[in-house]
Amino acid sequence: MYIGVDIGGTAIKIGLVDNEGNIVYKKQIDTKAKRGYLEIEKDIIGLIKSLINIAQDKGNKIKSIGIGVPGVADLEGNKVIYCPNLGWTNVPLGENLKKELKLPIYIENDATVAGIAESIKGITKGYKNSIFITLGTGVGGGIILGGKVYSGAHGIGSEIGHMIVGENFYDCNCGNNGCLETFSSATAIIKYAKKLIKEEKYETALLKKVNNDLMKLNSKMIFDSAKEGDQLANKVVDRMVRYLGIGIANLINILDPDVIAIGGGVSKAGDFLLEKVKKEVSKYVLYKEAKHAEIFLAELGNDAGIIGAALLSEYK
Amino acid sequence: MYIGVDIGGTAIKIGLVDNEGNIVYKKQIDTKAKRGYLEIEKDIIGLIKSLINIAQDKGNKIKSIGIGVPGVADLEGNKVIYCPNLGWTNVPLGENLKKELKLPIYIENDATVAGIAESIKGITKGYKNSIFITLGTGVGGGIILGGKVYSGAHGIGSEIGHMIVGENFYDCNCGNNGCLETFSSATAIIKYAKKLIKEEKYETALLKKVNNDLMKLNSKMIFDSAKEGDQLANKVVDRMVRYLGIGIANLINILDPDVIAIGGGVSKAGDFLLEKVKKEVSKYVLYKEAKHAEIFLAELGNDAGIIGAALLSEYK
Repeated sequence: MYIGVDIGGTAIKIGLVDNEGNIVYKKQIDTKAKRGYLEIEKDIIGLIKSLINIAQDKGNKIKSIGIGVPGVADLEGNKVIYCPNLGWTNVPLGENLKKELKLPIYIENDATVAGIAESIKGITKGYKNSIFITLGTGVGGGIILGGKVYSGAHGIGSEIGHMIVGENFYDCNCGNNGCLETFSSATAIIKYAKKLIKEEKYETALLKKVNNDLMKLNSKMIFDSAKEGDQLANKVVDRMVRYLGIGIANLINILDPDVIAIGGGVSKAGDFLLEKVKKEVSKYVLYKEAKHAEIFLAELGNDAGIIGAALLSEYK
Repeated sequence: MYIGVDIGGTAIKIGLVDNEGNIVYKKQIDTKAKRGYLEIEKDIIGLIKSLINIAQDKGNKIKSIGIGVPGVADLEGNKVIYCPNLGWTNVPLGENLKKELKLPIYIENDATVAGIAESIKGITKGYKNSIFITLGTGVGGGIILGGKVYSGAHGIGSEIGHMIVGENFYDCNCGNNGCLETFSSATAIIKYAKKLIKEEKYETALLKKVNNDLMKLNSKMIFDSAKEGDQLANKVVDRMVRYLGIGIANLINILDPDVIAIGGGVSKAGDFLLEKVKKEVSKYVLYKEAKHAEIFLAELGNDAGIIGAALLSEYK
């Protein structure tokens, strides 16, 4: 039996997971990031201990504990180096959990963890080399090569969202201009839609959808309006897809995986998005005649974080 | 003992190479690509047979034969899928050599092969994860992960030159716009220098260097003039370096290798180029505080193709 912890900006989810990636018990608390790292660490330790007890009551031993974080950890699973949403820099999460629990602890980026979950019981199951892309507030990535997590020589790889793919009208939070994240995240398309609404004189259904209050605009509304034929919404989607196509083709031209899975909130736009992306990717792949990566929508939902984190030890 | 064959657009080089990557005998013929594939294949087979005899005369057995091509081969080393400079599409080079010579045959992209050579006895020796970038007529790439060649799930990876990193004033030969190759190859900087000379009214030493005949312009002249303080030449170099910096930072943010080596004709600009590239890369790397890949100039010269090809079997 394994324990998986999925630390997010709003909630911390934890679960007992069996060898096949089935969640046999789960629990969730609010993150309340503002209270600071030490309080959160205390809660996490408490949650893990309660799950260890539950497992023991059923006669099960915990093999390892995995944690998904919205940021980056060191290769040894000792420190979380950086989690902007949580305000964490160089916090000794793994180190402290190892001391406290005397169990193997693994920490990885949340997109990597979701990618593992997809390859355990989702759409990338059976493929040895897969890339998982999350389209949410930002754009995240997880890379599995030869059946193992690939996070680089120093643990700072798979930052697909910060691949520079063009020039944009606003800078990325990271300070650079042209990051994939600034073209293809939910944040990016909302920003571009607002820009178009202000600058161009289209009739758009979006204004009705938000009752003329652009603060209410979200990515689902944009995709829904695009599906309904709204011109402005389609312009927004086309731009988002163009750069996502470039980003994915770059990954194919460099890494040539077996398969690429697209997940995260924006991927709920479904086949409407997927078909456009596939068409766009095919324009930019270098060896068009050769077999190259298939592109799918991710299959797993909210539990992916727990499942992938739990089985991290098997992918290291 | 191994045999390495380096097939280029102008010359075919072949060598007998020992376990440590030392060339003990070598030979070279003109490619004369226009005569077509079958004639060239015949010559290659002849050359290899003569080297097998030389090895046998000295009491050495050939373990395997490796071939570097300016293009892409299938994963099995049977077919060369595409070599634009040679006019080859789907030629059965590996298949035919295996039949004729009854020895293990490996075929890889020439940049990958040069990357292997650097990791055998060049600047990336001792590193498990390295990326080799050649800056020449085009921009090529070779990726070594965990001490093995990484060419992808279908053998079409490591095409670093066709990573799209911006928007350019002319299209790439591949049909796309914004490929790294169109910013940072010798061809690219010559093109941009010509554009600036035509469009802008700089005084430039370049015009003197080519006796007002822009057909004579080459990348060495541009770097030499930049080193001498020529304003236009520096503008050309700065643009080239900017996009190379973006491309390398993209590789670090995604693949996070131990080390990156820059080779090819343009790399002869030396530390003048290297220092600028390092500075530019550091702007675009996401985790600036974390340890990340060191960047070096490649060390090996013309023989890299033979050495890397010869020892391909050890890196597969």
